[in-house]
Amino acid sequence: MKIVAIDTSTKQLSVALSDGKQIVAEASYVTSLNHATKLMPLLERLMVEAKWTPAQLTRIVVADGPGSYTGLRIGATTAKTLAYTLGIELVAISTLELMAASTGHTGRVAAIQDARRGAGFVGVYDAGKRIGEEQHVEIASFVKTLTPDTLVTGDVEAFEEILQPFEKVAPAFRTPRAGVLALLGATRQTVEAHAFEPRYLRLAEAEAKWIEAQRHE
Amino acid sequence: MKIVAIDTSTKQLSVALSDGKQIVAEASYVTSLNHATKLMPLLERLMVEAKWTPAQLTRIVVADGPGSYTGLRIGATTAKTLAYTLGIELVAISTLELMAASTGHTGRVAAIQDARRGAGFVGVYDAGKRIGEEQHVEIASFVKTLTPDTLVTGDVEAFEEILQPFEKVAPAFRTPRAGVLALLGATRQTVEAHAFEPRYLRLAEAEAKWIEAQRHE
Repeated sequence: MKIVAIDTSTKQLSVALSDGKQIVAEASYVTSLNHATKLMPLLERLMVEAKWTPAQLTRIVVADGPGSYTGLRIGATTAKTLAYTLGIELVAISTLELMAASTGHTGRVAAIQDARRGAGFVGVYDAGKRIGEEQHVEIASFVKTLTPDTLVTGDVEAFEEILQPFEKVAPAFRTPRAGVLALLGATRQTVEAHAFEPRYLRLAEAEAKWIEAQRHE
Repeated sequence: MKIVAIDTSTKQLSVALSDGKQIVAEASYVTSLNHATKLMPLLERLMVEAKWTPAQLTRIVVADGPGSYTGLRIGATTAKTLAYTLGIELVAISTLELMAASTGHTGRVAAIQDARRGAGFVGVYDAGKRIGEEQHVEIASFVKTLTPDTLVTGDVEAFEEILQPFEKVAPAFRTPRAGVLALLGATRQTVEAHAFEPRYLRLAEAEAKWIEAQRHE
């Protein structure tokens, strides 16, 4: 089994190769959303390093959001194109689940992505199992639903005051790792490459404005 | 603060950059001990990616063993040379502590490196604090000293039967990460570059044989 995993859903770009049991190579860059130009060169470099050829690949795992609209489009397009052209399996995994899994914590974890203006994309996982739905919510109301033993991860600094009562994951474990994604995706159900779309959990701002404008015409 | 962290002490090569608060870039390759040719090009690539120049660096953090003799020599020599030529701080951290920290687990962790013939390099950490000394021991006797709540990490597959009663860290968290090393080393006491030597915890096989031969002369 030769798995490529890519995560472009946050401001960090992360790519990994795995044989399904271990991580063979992994690289993560904070690239300030410059994923479009960085993703393929980084993937190619890891492939060269691991002496893997595209023809050997058996599976692509991609983090399918929520997250940055542009980042998700780049990740989804790249993953679909690779799956289609190489004729291999495609697996999609929630970015929030990946964030929870990347903490290494086996108890309850709340993964939070800053969505501006006090809101966030959130998901709660306990021992890898999702508790409730992932959602786009006001963080101030969301925290009232959390049990006190919940560890928080992700953009915790953006909500420092609100998250004050909760234990935070150490900084080295707060960002999604493609190596973790590869191993999560090794045993998951595949999706159909053509039909696959990332999950934005809410409309992009431009889209929302356009719909709003139509309504008033 | 601009920190470079390098770990060459196991068969995996890991390099990271950090501003002291977050990981800026991190790459890890399973390179089958080919660290000598891979380390500097990988570090250079991360520096280019992060737009850092050598003159900006403030600190080098290196995992100082125990581990592969050749790997440790490469890491130590590179770290010393960088610290000396750039006139910057050098921090050394135990590879076993790094392995325990890379699990993300905040409870008790036993880090084990396979040293062949049933023996290993071991260290026990609890919430980041070392419990007892790091040592080179028979793993079968070592496990008798562990509390049942101890999580085991490192070369756990080499001692599968002996470690059977203990919970194992998931594969994605079993290898030392230079990103974790960088953040551990951000606040540690520095060492004097000239005097710094890696810790082998036992003599290299060749050295041990030589001493044994002298004894019988």
